[in-house]
Amino acid sequence: MKIAVDGMGGDYAPEEIVKGAIAGSREYGVQVALVGPSETMERELAKHDRSGADIEVVHASEYLVEGEPPAYALRQKRDASVVVATRLVKTGEADAVVSAGPTGGVVASAMYVLGTLEGMSRPVVGGPFLGFAPNTIMMDLGSNVDCQPHQLVDFAIVGTVYARKMMNIPEPTIALLSVGAEEGKGNEQVKTSYPLFRQCGLNFIGNIEGYDIPLAKANVIICDGFVGNIVVKFCESLGMTIAGWLKDKIGGKLPESDVKQITDDLLLATNAADAWGGGPLWAVDGVACVCHGRSRHEEIAKTIGQAKLAVERNLVGTLKSELAAARQTLKQAGLE
Amino acid sequence: MKIAVDGMGGDYAPEEIVKGAIAGSREYGVQVALVGPSETMERELAKHDRSGADIEVVHASEYLVEGEPPAYALRQKRDASVVVATRLVKTGEADAVVSAGPTGGVVASAMYVLGTLEGMSRPVVGGPFLGFAPNTIMMDLGSNVDCQPHQLVDFAIVGTVYARKMMNIPEPTIALLSVGAEEGKGNEQVKTSYPLFRQCGLNFIGNIEGYDIPLAKANVIICDGFVGNIVVKFCESLGMTIAGWLKDKIGGKLPESDVKQITDDLLLATNAADAWGGGPLWAVDGVACVCHGRSRHEEIAKTIGQAKLAVERNLVGTLKSELAAARQTLKQAGLE
Repeated sequence: MKIAVDGMGGDYAPEEIVKGAIAGSREYGVQVALVGPSETMERELAKHDRSGADIEVVHASEYLVEGEPPAYALRQKRDASVVVATRLVKTGEADAVVSAGPTGGVVASAMYVLGTLEGMSRPVVGGPFLGFAPNTIMMDLGSNVDCQPHQLVDFAIVGTVYARKMMNIPEPTIALLSVGAEEGKGNEQVKTSYPLFRQCGLNFIGNIEGYDIPLAKANVIICDGFVGNIVVKFCESLGMTIAGWLKDKIGGKLPESDVKQITDDLLLATNAADAWGGGPLWAVDGVACVCHGRSRHEEIAKTIGQAKLAVERNLVGTLKSELAAARQTLKQAGLE
Repeated sequence: MKIAVDGMGGDYAPEEIVKGAIAGSREYGVQVALVGPSETMERELAKHDRSGADIEVVHASEYLVEGEPPAYALRQKRDASVVVATRLVKTGEADAVVSAGPTGGVVASAMYVLGTLEGMSRPVVGGPFLGFAPNTIMMDLGSNVDCQPHQLVDFAIVGTVYARKMMNIPEPTIALLSVGAEEGKGNEQVKTSYPLFRQCGLNFIGNIEGYDIPLAKANVIICDGFVGNIVVKFCESLGMTIAGWLKDKIGGKLPESDVKQITDDLLLATNAADAWGGGPLWAVDGVACVCHGRSRHEEIAKTIGQAKLAVERNLVGTLKSELAAARQTLKQAGLE
């Protein structure tokens, strides 16, 4: 199996990415196509012991930088490392792509080069995000900000496949995030989605409230990307705020190493990106994994492992057939 | 000044409410009209020392209970304590009403008896909600789940008056809660609201993200009640989850009293209702303050203080003129 890694994407590129590519190749027994300016890539590779790793360099003359509008960047930089890496998946030369480059650029590259699955207009972003609820994932987390009910159903199918294939939960429970548990509670989006959720063959347990998120009341929590993004970012920031406050409160009263351990654990539990590394962009017709911009070599290696798992478990194929089945069910029920 | 208190509203009614009414009357030097079945009210009053308090009982034969649909309850129970108490404000016999009864019932009672201000279809709920950002309020928190841009502008005006009059912030900053700071980032609701916010004469500083909430980047954060309710309830639950986790981590390592103090402080900082007591329902044509259902006497007394402040500072009058001025500005700019 070969994973294409965008050697120039991320706050700590190329150093940490190359280091992570070597570690990932070794750890997960996969070939890595390291994509970037060949001189830079070779120079970085030369700094490390490569025994047990199988790395080839694929040249790309350019790369995206944070702050560029994605569509503009992709038009101007056809030879950007993330685009070249994604193209390797399209042509079959690689099985998956991993990038820590600007999220907008990675998403746009996946959309334009690989395309999205039938009926899905944009990739879906989601995954576990709270250490206190490790078997709970939330979707979408920012890619789709205005959603129709049938899109939320698609997210639920994506989430079900995610939980089954990547988290080994055989019958994941699905809930709609709302402002009250009863049917009929919520905004228009939730109220019109509810009957679709009930009839599309999912393991739907109803609405849950914000209060229920940390209590892990469902395996898959569905919301639009506007709500999901706000909740996840608020969570991360509140975790940092509480960790800082706690340091003042217990610092001096406990050994310094204990204080560090407790605050580090809290940060990890409230910060999805650091805890889980990158994950696949869902609803893309191919495996494209996006990592947080500030990923270091450990996260890059972990994400290579995630990419391998996604390929081995045939995520994309399963998702295609599950989406088709759910649409068929809704159609038979006269709901789509 | 006379404050009408719903003696039968709340999880701990009538005991804690009556106790709170006595304390509030004494502490804030206001008359209290205690509304409920007169025998019950007199019996509870007789248990306490009433020196320094000025309490009269106003009879109401019925009361709302948690779980009743508000509209149904109000039709069936025309003599419910919260309705009778609210009517005292309408007729001018009291200056404000305070209730810890079912929120839906209190809101419905305020809407039907007092009415909402011109152009506002429902009351607005909001206030400070995070101890780490005491000078930040968020609106709406659940009363208005589907909002048009002009409603969000109304919330911002409410928030500005709140921050000025109740929190003594002379020039409160206003932000729209979104998924990116730049204009153009956000869902349709935020994108169409942005230009209105820029031109309505508010101290608008742009969009903020979920990440910015605990960092107190704005005094008044505006969102629809769907998003606001989810964020505030998630915050409360995450605070409780972290407090529980922390107890395990530091319990045994620190004196028990320190552990209790730290976890209690954390719970208070993440739980608006407990920290601030009740607050006024905004956009109602009269002062109606709603408390959390689980309020004890301290919260009831505090809320009586809030009600007094709202009356003294002429909240309703100020709000009426500010709303009219903002509409005029938008009209002149051709935006309404």
